[in-house]
Amino acid sequence: MSSSSSDQVITCKAAVAWGAGEPLVIEQVQVSPPQPMEIRVKVVCTSLCRSDLTAWESQAIFPRIFGHEASGIVESVGQGVDEFKEGDHVLTLFSGECMRCRQCTSGKSNMCQVLGLERKGVMHSDQMTRFSVNGNPIYHYCAVSSFSEYTVVHSGCAVKISPTVPLEKICVLSCGVAAGLGAAWNIADVSKGSTVVIFGLGTVGLSVAQGAKLRGASRIIGVDKNPEKSEKAKAFGVTEFINLNSCNEPIQQVINRITDGGADYSFECIGDTEMITTALQSCCDGWGLTVTLGVPKVKPVISAHYGLFLTGRTLRGSMFGGWKPKSDLPSLVDMYLKKEINIDEYITHNLAFDNINEAFNLMREGKCLRCVMHMPK
Amino acid sequence: MSSSSSDQVITCKAAVAWGAGEPLVIEQVQVSPPQPMEIRVKVVCTSLCRSDLTAWESQAIFPRIFGHEASGIVESVGQGVDEFKEGDHVLTLFSGECMRCRQCTSGKSNMCQVLGLERKGVMHSDQMTRFSVNGNPIYHYCAVSSFSEYTVVHSGCAVKISPTVPLEKICVLSCGVAAGLGAAWNIADVSKGSTVVIFGLGTVGLSVAQGAKLRGASRIIGVDKNPEKSEKAKAFGVTEFINLNSCNEPIQQVINRITDGGADYSFECIGDTEMITTALQSCCDGWGLTVTLGVPKVKPVISAHYGLFLTGRTLRGSMFGGWKPKSDLPSLVDMYLKKEINIDEYITHNLAFDNINEAFNLMREGKCLRCVMHMPK
Repeated sequence: MSSSSSDQVITCKAAVAWGAGEPLVIEQVQVSPPQPMEIRVKVVCTSLCRSDLTAWESQAIFPRIFGHEASGIVESVGQGVDEFKEGDHVLTLFSGECMRCRQCTSGKSNMCQVLGLERKGVMHSDQMTRFSVNGNPIYHYCAVSSFSEYTVVHSGCAVKISPTVPLEKICVLSCGVAAGLGAAWNIADVSKGSTVVIFGLGTVGLSVAQGAKLRGASRIIGVDKNPEKSEKAKAFGVTEFINLNSCNEPIQQVINRITDGGADYSFECIGDTEMITTALQSCCDGWGLTVTLGVPKVKPVISAHYGLFLTGRTLRGSMFGGWKPKSDLPSLVDMYLKKEINIDEYITHNLAFDNINEAFNLMREGKCLRCVMHMPK
Repeated sequence: MSSSSSDQVITCKAAVAWGAGEPLVIEQVQVSPPQPMEIRVKVVCTSLCRSDLTAWESQAIFPRIFGHEASGIVESVGQGVDEFKEGDHVLTLFSGECMRCRQCTSGKSNMCQVLGLERKGVMHSDQMTRFSVNGNPIYHYCAVSSFSEYTVVHSGCAVKISPTVPLEKICVLSCGVAAGLGAAWNIADVSKGSTVVIFGLGTVGLSVAQGAKLRGASRIIGVDKNPEKSEKAKAFGVTEFINLNSCNEPIQQVINRITDGGADYSFECIGDTEMITTALQSCCDGWGLTVTLGVPKVKPVISAHYGLFLTGRTLRGSMFGGWKPKSDLPSLVDMYLKKEINIDEYITHNLAFDNINEAFNLMREGKCLRCVMHMPK
């Protein structure tokens, strides 16, 4: 079905990034109607994730509208969309699920070949943008671009949620928090009584901590160069904190000593390939598992001595914590409603959307976990 | 209990490597009595494994007696040994099992901390040798050194087998064949109908093939630079052969094309860290698993783009196929007796022990799988 507004262009406010590292500018943008199988969403809340910042600092595609962790309400739907209707509450998905490709039908992957991570700043279906300013295209980010009052996403890149779910909270499940919980549960399958090391105590690392704690890990060692993370981390289950900057010997040596030969699991949540090697060296012979979640900001190649593997270690990657976004997120939303997982605590700041540059500054300075931006009512 | 001969030095023939790459010399060596918890074994058959050759070509510890795949009969036992008695038939183990350390008691590792891989050429218990020539020590290899009529091993580095098992065959289960089968079964857990790629079709690679075939893999793609491997490989389950030397495009590109996006599993059985990267690139997004079994002859560092992991690949190491040597080998011996696994076909050559240099030449030239050497009766 299609709503009456589905063939109208909407003009609304969006935060446009005109160049790498330049402050965003709140502009009036034109948002095209949803194309077939797409929906247009009125964004209600959107939070800032580290990868928005990394892309804004480094990537070449501009002008662009960032943002990919968001909750909203369907404004109109494109041709062929049966799954959503106007007024539905949704979470956006930075990586979608087509339900038909080899990956989706395998039942063991979330790497959809059709609606997977979009890196060129355009929509999956026609490689075009749905945003413009004065007739000039503005590029998307991860085919979500939630730093706009309205955005268009493929219907495979959104998931319906109950209208009883608080939209101002649930947006953080759209990426970081789910990614961390899933890394602990789906990718590592952390076992009761185990020892876990987490490199990087941002939202993702602290979500790994929560996931490990809920699985009954007995030691959760958090490593970060910011000592201010120490206190906050305890609330999420971290039992020991190591300050990377005030450590006088190689961190893997410290961890091997205090764990009598290495942790059962190590998680790299910084996005530093050198630290992935350190994480491998910090887990034990025989069954040590290192999970890498971060997106490297600098060197994209991981290097490690073969002996680390031959003595029984495993290195696994985790994209969105292994969750199949459309199929699996509803169960996480349910867990939140039943208070089985905590997501509110990751929200350290709330800001009006107009103050989005403040959110970028807070994250750059390491002062926030999640900063939720509220769209004008 | 201790036998009457357990305090006597034995003088016997052994093949001594006096220097890197130099032909072995059959010498009269003195073999000390077994020390506490050790056994002295009359070797019956011993086969040559690629890692003997690699160590002989490259390592610094000489003079040395190589050999670690062997079957034999217990000649005498040291103090405190209750598990073996004179006359017991045994397989030697290049990596032992103490049954008490963190690794052994974990139930999920074969990386014994007490009797694991010995790299210094001495015995685990006292860091001394049990061999000498004219009073000068001759070093061990992997604490087994089966290229000798008699050898001394720790009782944790041998496993008892039924006297009905043909010793001239079963020696190959002591390392290579078991390593390959275990990589397919224990480490990769190859599933029915899956696609497998194997880099390197020596004994280990062809044992991975047999393991994958027995699990019902539907495609087993073998990659080797020696085209003579093609025909032989079929007998072990390889369904397609790719000649690495006559391939005009990157091998990972070929494999990705013919498997529509990559294999489910890839195994690196060459001992080439560059090929580990290729193996990762040859398996699919979402659930592709690369298992590394080889010991690199040159560059010991593995390098791979983080994106290979983030898109869902896993890299695992396999030491002796994940088998707990003493606990698990008896079940493999049983499978052999019941004809559930084939090991005879790996034995392409049989030689008298005196002709050991011929075995080294055959393996150097890629002309044998396993060459079994028979000790004088």
